[in-house]
Amino acid sequence: MRVALAQVNTVVGDFQANARKVRDALKDARRMAADIVLFPELTLTGYPPEDLLLKPAFIQKNLDTLKRLTRHSQGLIAIVGFAEPAGSALYNAAALLADGRHVGSYRKMRLPNYGVFDEKRYFREGERPARFTFQGRRIGLTICEDIWDEGGPGRGLCEAGGLDLLLNISSSPYHKGKWKDREAMIANHARAYRAPVVYANLVGGQDELVFDGHSLVVLPDGSVLARGGGFVEEMIYADVPLAEKRAANKAARGGAGPVKTFRVAALGAASRKKPLAKHPFSPLGELEEVYQALVLGTRDYLQKNGFETGVIGLSGGVDSALTAKIGCDAIGPENIVGVLMPSPYSSRGSVEDSLALATRLGIRTLTLPIEEAMHAYEKILAGAFKGMPPGVAEENLQARIRGNLLMALSNKMGWLVLTTGNKSEYSVGYCTLYGDMAGGFAVLKDVPKTWVYDLCRFINRQAGEAVIPENVLTKEPSAELRPNQKDSDSLPPYPLLDRVLSRYIEGDHGLGQLRGLGLPAAEVRRIALRVDANEYKRRQSPPGVKITPKSFGRDRRLPITNHFKG
Amino acid sequence: MRVALAQVNTVVGDFQANARKVRDALKDARRMAADIVLFPELTLTGYPPEDLLLKPAFIQKNLDTLKRLTRHSQGLIAIVGFAEPAGSALYNAAALLADGRHVGSYRKMRLPNYGVFDEKRYFREGERPARFTFQGRRIGLTICEDIWDEGGPGRGLCEAGGLDLLLNISSSPYHKGKWKDREAMIANHARAYRAPVVYANLVGGQDELVFDGHSLVVLPDGSVLARGGGFVEEMIYADVPLAEKRAANKAARGGAGPVKTFRVAALGAASRKKPLAKHPFSPLGELEEVYQALVLGTRDYLQKNGFETGVIGLSGGVDSALTAKIGCDAIGPENIVGVLMPSPYSSRGSVEDSLALATRLGIRTLTLPIEEAMHAYEKILAGAFKGMPPGVAEENLQARIRGNLLMALSNKMGWLVLTTGNKSEYSVGYCTLYGDMAGGFAVLKDVPKTWVYDLCRFINRQAGEAVIPENVLTKEPSAELRPNQKDSDSLPPYPLLDRVLSRYIEGDHGLGQLRGLGLPAAEVRRIALRVDANEYKRRQSPPGVKITPKSFGRDRRLPITNHFKG
Repeated sequence: MRVALAQVNTVVGDFQANARKVRDALKDARRMAADIVLFPELTLTGYPPEDLLLKPAFIQKNLDTLKRLTRHSQGLIAIVGFAEPAGSALYNAAALLADGRHVGSYRKMRLPNYGVFDEKRYFREGERPARFTFQGRRIGLTICEDIWDEGGPGRGLCEAGGLDLLLNISSSPYHKGKWKDREAMIANHARAYRAPVVYANLVGGQDELVFDGHSLVVLPDGSVLARGGGFVEEMIYADVPLAEKRAANKAARGGAGPVKTFRVAALGAASRKKPLAKHPFSPLGELEEVYQALVLGTRDYLQKNGFETGVIGLSGGVDSALTAKIGCDAIGPENIVGVLMPSPYSSRGSVEDSLALATRLGIRTLTLPIEEAMHAYEKILAGAFKGMPPGVAEENLQARIRGNLLMALSNKMGWLVLTTGNKSEYSVGYCTLYGDMAGGFAVLKDVPKTWVYDLCRFINRQAGEAVIPENVLTKEPSAELRPNQKDSDSLPPYPLLDRVLSRYIEGDHGLGQLRGLGLPAAEVRRIALRVDANEYKRRQSPPGVKITPKSFGRDRRLPITNHFKG
Repeated sequence: MRVALAQVNTVVGDFQANARKVRDALKDARRMAADIVLFPELTLTGYPPEDLLLKPAFIQKNLDTLKRLTRHSQGLIAIVGFAEPAGSALYNAAALLADGRHVGSYRKMRLPNYGVFDEKRYFREGERPARFTFQGRRIGLTICEDIWDEGGPGRGLCEAGGLDLLLNISSSPYHKGKWKDREAMIANHARAYRAPVVYANLVGGQDELVFDGHSLVVLPDGSVLARGGGFVEEMIYADVPLAEKRAANKAARGGAGPVKTFRVAALGAASRKKPLAKHPFSPLGELEEVYQALVLGTRDYLQKNGFETGVIGLSGGVDSALTAKIGCDAIGPENIVGVLMPSPYSSRGSVEDSLALATRLGIRTLTLPIEEAMHAYEKILAGAFKGMPPGVAEENLQARIRGNLLMALSNKMGWLVLTTGNKSEYSVGYCTLYGDMAGGFAVLKDVPKTWVYDLCRFINRQAGEAVIPENVLTKEPSAELRPNQKDSDSLPPYPLLDRVLSRYIEGDHGLGQLRGLGLPAAEVRRIALRVDANEYKRRQSPPGVKITPKSFGRDRRLPITNHFKG
């Protein structure tokens, strides 16, 4: 049986564009003589639609779109994700379209409601597994989370008369290495169900999420027949070998049983199948994978929100260098503007390194020295601050002047400000609210500082030259907000800090579990308290690409008002 | 039977303080010879603990706290909310403590997962209703959401042998008029179950939520025997008349049945009951109720986060006037600082009105003219902006200079910036990110502009004098960011705007349903598009008190990247 996996990049709420992608994929699949085409979960609405699902007009538009699309399924079977209302309930559903008819729908039974997921906020759980028969084969339908549970609807289908092929349509968000976990899980379940599994995943960025594609066709022995690429929109075709036809098991058929069953008759005018070449796939290395996620997440945020140009404050440091490089790979260096905003505390190196970076990336720069604004604030606040020594207030003012200048450029030119803070800084609040945190998209928000270095070195290695100037990578990190300031004045060395942060934030470890990581207990406690105390800053931060198992944002919902220390 | 409702103000994560409140209430209840004392839902953790519930150390601390508290229940029955782990599951539970023993627990069966609630993210649903027998009476235990469903566990208890008294411990967040809905619902269910209902609710502010108290004792005929006050911490006592004792229904007792059943023997050393006076209650008027919610939400945000002083930018407008007044009532005028930041576009009236307001409120002021900073930015940006006419960028710079000055004061003095934007502005983005939106707490974030006026007039009426200067209320609203600017240049009249916004935002109405509200269709469409297009700003806004059925924040989760128009 020839399957097509339409690994498409949909847009939330863009029914017209999403329908166009479905029609184009169906056309291509027909040309390639595919029998079945799979689209990602909630194809028509985009994923995740969040509270748009509460708007009746949104649900109606999704139904209208499905209706108009149905006739485009002539000659093949299409599995299209949509939101299916029934009375006061709403289901996350997969429409079975065949030869121009909407034969039936399957309703997702396992609704994720953890991490970034809120599906129980919107959907009711489907009651029964569903399958359809086609060419004498029993083909099961599942949606995303359904397949993560071996005891889920796949198991139900096996028990209710067997399964010749299992389909899954997914919108499974990325984090580092997840595609390998997915592949291992699907291989296990293919073996357990003794059936091939065809898994079509979404690709593209949506706010804080990026979907990595990596669609799959896995055989019953767990081997991979075809893989979709990571972070690319593409059609994947595969001829799935199926077991011999079996006699229909009448007992398991029909409406009221434990399984919903549909029948798809022979399809009209199917083209002759020409032999398929194996779908090409080259796996991404660990760092390349993270890098591609950041690039796609950034590109889609810019483009889907209508921005042509990104603007970045260049400090001469490693974060702004990496952010600028990602921006260039996302929308082209001709659409990235670097802004240097030196103060009297900026080293000459910072300016030189920033200009060197800009030259190597091929981006425009603007230089806006901030000293004059610093003096203006100083004068305005002289009375109020009289007799008090300079400190964090004055440092933050510098960061905020820079934030203001970038936002002024954004307002005037229509550019999006890409902010440069990393996860380590956001964790402990080593960043200024409305200052370096100001902007539309925080590219590195979920990237720990140690990974920032790793990614820069990866870029240079891959390019075979120092795209990121060596000096940027080797000098000691500094915010340069007062004379001779170094990050290490306020923070432990980043490798040690990141080790604690990953366990505290991603692992939810308590203070008692954070021992033996190379830092004294008092220091660990201080870090944990700083993480908690800076929740208010993160709550006001721009979105950024999730690349770890637990990012800030919808993924981690901690109260600001919180007296728990531990 | 004498019941005590401990309408206490807990703090999320403050096990020590929460336990102290429980102990104090038990002591008082013992003195008053109460038989049963009810505490709010999740008493020990505070509500809502959000992702703190994912931390094993947090769960353990809550168990340890419950254990230590148990012995303090000598001589009475206490119903205390806590998080109960069982294997890999977690339950939102009510502990039945009696005479120094933890007799058993009930696990919440109905978990809200809509609006501001995410309970299915954390908890598993309890399987069975629970009751205990005491003095021959069957007393049912329920938690918050359980009682909103007439077919919920209350019904299950009725069917499994009857119910003599139904208890409910709640943490039910406020919105305008909700206490009346609650009262009507509880009265209905008391009638349906033919049993008195005792309903103890939380009071206090937690981030964006405020809990209004308004605990209740309702008789089987639906009449109210006692009410807790709105927005106050207090003990409410009532003698609940119960039907005659009935013979125990043996069939319904025991472990494995449809109902979990506990038995509480006669209590030790119960004091002699002296007659009770009726608990005093004076209902709040509509505006007073909203006002009290804002005051309590603001006070608790400040105090629970350790701020002694609030600072507010005074523009001479109605929003900053109301915010300042709320600040004064929250933490005292001696702890509120008003900052005037006039520009060349500020009218003389703005300064005079602000000073008049400050005098009437009795707050300190600082005056920090911003012209110098405006010039500094102008010079810095002169090259980049060359040949472009002044516009929104220059206007936003003024707002951001003011934001920076307030934040500088905050950083230097440890004051919390109370921002002054209202819901109408936040809805359509008539506010500057990092400018007037900058701050720690957005007091009026959920208050539509028309209500801002209503609340100011209410304040003046109640005071019998113009606390808010009359001129502030009668002049035309203006952001004063360019010469002769008026809000009405950019926005329809507020009464019309608010009518559209309430239906679009709170009602999820589509464009087709927004006709006949006094505005042309094109204008309505423009408003809806502005609401959608400004999601990115709201995502970076400070928290504020929820007072409508749907506030911005956790209550309304819309994507930023969203192509749906309608």
